Amino acid sequence: MLNFEFHNPTHIVFGKDTVPSLNRLVPHDARVLILYGGQSAERNGTLAEVRQALGDRAWYEFGGIEPNPSFETLTRAVEQVRTQNISFLLAVGGGSVIDGTKFVAAAAKYADDPWRILETVGSVIEDALPFGAVLTLSATGSEMNFNSVVTRKATQTKAFFASPHVFPKFSILDPTKTYTLPPQQLANGVVDAFTHVVEQYLTYPVEARVQDRFAEGLLQTLIEVGPKVVHEPADYDSRASMMWAATMALNGLIGAGVPQDWATHLVGHELTAQFGMDHARTLAILLPSMLSIRRESKRAKLIQYAERVWHITTGSEDERIDQAIRKTRAFFESLGVKTRLSGYGIPADAIDGLVQQLQAHGMTQLGEHSDVTLEISRQVFEASI
Amino acid sequence: MLNFEFHNPTHIVFGKDTVPSLNRLVPHDARVLILYGGQSAERNGTLAEVRQALGDRAWYEFGGIEPNPSFETLTRAVEQVRTQNISFLLAVGGGSVIDGTKFVAAAAKYADDPWRILETVGSVIEDALPFGAVLTLSATGSEMNFNSVVTRKATQTKAFFASPHVFPKFSILDPTKTYTLPPQQLANGVVDAFTHVVEQYLTYPVEARVQDRFAEGLLQTLIEVGPKVVHEPADYDSRASMMWAATMALNGLIGAGVPQDWATHLVGHELTAQFGMDHARTLAILLPSMLSIRRESKRAKLIQYAERVWHITTGSEDERIDQAIRKTRAFFESLGVKTRLSGYGIPADAIDGLVQQLQAHGMTQLGEHSDVTLEISRQVFEASI
Repeated sequence: MLNFEFHNPTHIVFGKDTVPSLNRLVPHDARVLILYGGQSAERNGTLAEVRQALGDRAWYEFGGIEPNPSFETLTRAVEQVRTQNISFLLAVGGGSVIDGTKFVAAAAKYADDPWRILETVGSVIEDALPFGAVLTLSATGSEMNFNSVVTRKATQTKAFFASPHVFPKFSILDPTKTYTLPPQQLANGVVDAFTHVVEQYLTYPVEARVQDRFAEGLLQTLIEVGPKVVHEPADYDSRASMMWAATMALNGLIGAGVPQDWATHLVGHELTAQFGMDHARTLAILLPSMLSIRRESKRAKLIQYAERVWHITTGSEDERIDQAIRKTRAFFESLGVKTRLSGYGIPADAIDGLVQQLQAHGMTQLGEHSDVTLEISRQVFEASI
Repeated sequence: MLNFEFHNPTHIVFGKDTVPSLNRLVPHDARVLILYGGQSAERNGTLAEVRQALGDRAWYEFGGIEPNPSFETLTRAVEQVRTQNISFLLAVGGGSVIDGTKFVAAAAKYADDPWRILETVGSVIEDALPFGAVLTLSATGSEMNFNSVVTRKATQTKAFFASPHVFPKFSILDPTKTYTLPPQQLANGVVDAFTHVVEQYLTYPVEARVQDRFAEGLLQTLIEVGPKVVHEPADYDSRASMMWAATMALNGLIGAGVPQDWATHLVGHELTAQFGMDHARTLAILLPSMLSIRRESKRAKLIQYAERVWHITTGSEDERIDQAIRKTRAFFESLGVKTRLSGYGIPADAIDGLVQQLQAHGMTQLGEHSDVTLEISRQVFEASI
């Protein structure tokens, strides 16, 4: 096991009918800004519940945070925070709204150009407004971590930052809040959480037995409940297991003390930037090819993955690896997520441009061994046609 | 899954050579009281390392905290805290030292009779001195939870309390600090951690898939590394997995959203009280009988345990359950821990007295269904002869 530090102070309130606990969790003298995305939070009644729980606190609202939240939009929210003298932020939504709220929380307390927060990957953050979250979409784990991704619309740059100052104070996870989501978003959430686990698990062995077992447990859970989440409209148990699995997939726990990869995410960002493709769909396309092409450096863990997650124990090593990758792909497809570039109408001749963009963004040495070169990324794209 | 709240702010620093991080974790202006148990922390050099890391901070020491830390001893530590105007406590030891430090932290800030803290199970605690821990023995999970057990020597009463004010601010987990422990303490730690998991896992199913997988992962890890921990003196990887598994076994995570049992612990306390038996040995004796006698109400989870933890998939349900319980017993015995009362020289005619003590302590409705009556406890003792 590698040396590590683990610290996650977010207070989780999980279960049915938990939105009223806002009254206990938000300071009574707070001036609250509720941040949300589109109109679904209004339509499905969550915003009304939130307003009621806040009682006679002074609250204001900022809507319109996009999927891939933009620096431009969030900068307007920061202005509103200052104008209205806000003391507490409340994100109501999924990963994009929570990521955006993290940026607003940090930028509101930062005197210089807020773009510096992204340029420095968060290292300039010394303070942030406190904030909580009401989660309405399981996928990114943002509800229990200190990471955020913000996009600059002007340049289509996806920028990541992290800081212990932007842990949510609390997150309310009510699985019933996901009942009204469309199947595509639900499927995206399962693929996203699954890939988060794989990025922290499928590297090379370091005798981190607890982390491996936990990662395998999350993958098994997602495999078991994923199809129900997507195809059964209001099944509480599967939504609850999905919600908790997605949170645990990226709250720092399974990644503590182990090497991490993240090449699939970073290469996938170019597909989103160039074609506006949903983040999770980029992962579904690239992950199977990534695992297949990088099988030598991942061999020991791929065989462990085949055995413990997919119960594949016969055949040569490469046959077991191939079978595990086929099953991974079939799992994504079973959720209604296509796993080939061609399924999204992206032609083979787009690959040159994608590789050029990887180069322009400095993505030339990715993965747990920094050995995912542009040439490897090209092979991954080609194997994903 | 049951509704739950999860909040665990303890900062974990894990790995080799991590004691020097005390210099970063303890406030620079702190007046520190180092609390420890016997002379082993001095002999093995850990105390010297701690003193060096504290640098020029004002530090004092309080040694002699017993296994099963006593109210009487801890009350003396509280006096010293007040006399020396201590602002930060540092526990150096295992679960007993950390449990004791929690009591000192709360009592130092409590104006009335400190026994009230135990009488109220911690509910009167409104503040506590901040404290950290350097863990030298893996077993209880006290390094990452807010629970404590204190014994009143005068009456041989074991009293439990809990309060979110007594989470450690940090815990340093260096697996090499366990190298000098005797095999009996190491074996006790494995049994203790294993039973902590079972108390939160082997109840009845509530579709808590993540928690089940995590619990099974911890049990599998303990089964894999337990014998190496006990029989191989300085094997880093097994000590590291044991240390992290024991912490995760009782930090609130696997118990969130599921029913919990704890009858084995509560009945076992009587064996410690009457015969001075190590806590873990009481668990090793009682757990197999407890599972066997309560198999009807635990049937579904026992079968899951047999299959997922011990890979037992053939035979009738009762055969599978019996085999899983036999394997559990054999696992404890493989660590050098006897699993029968007779192995410790306790005769069958002691049972009447033990049952009377359970009654005197109000332990008449234990377990996840409150159906472990005195009669059931008697059967468990009789099956454990």
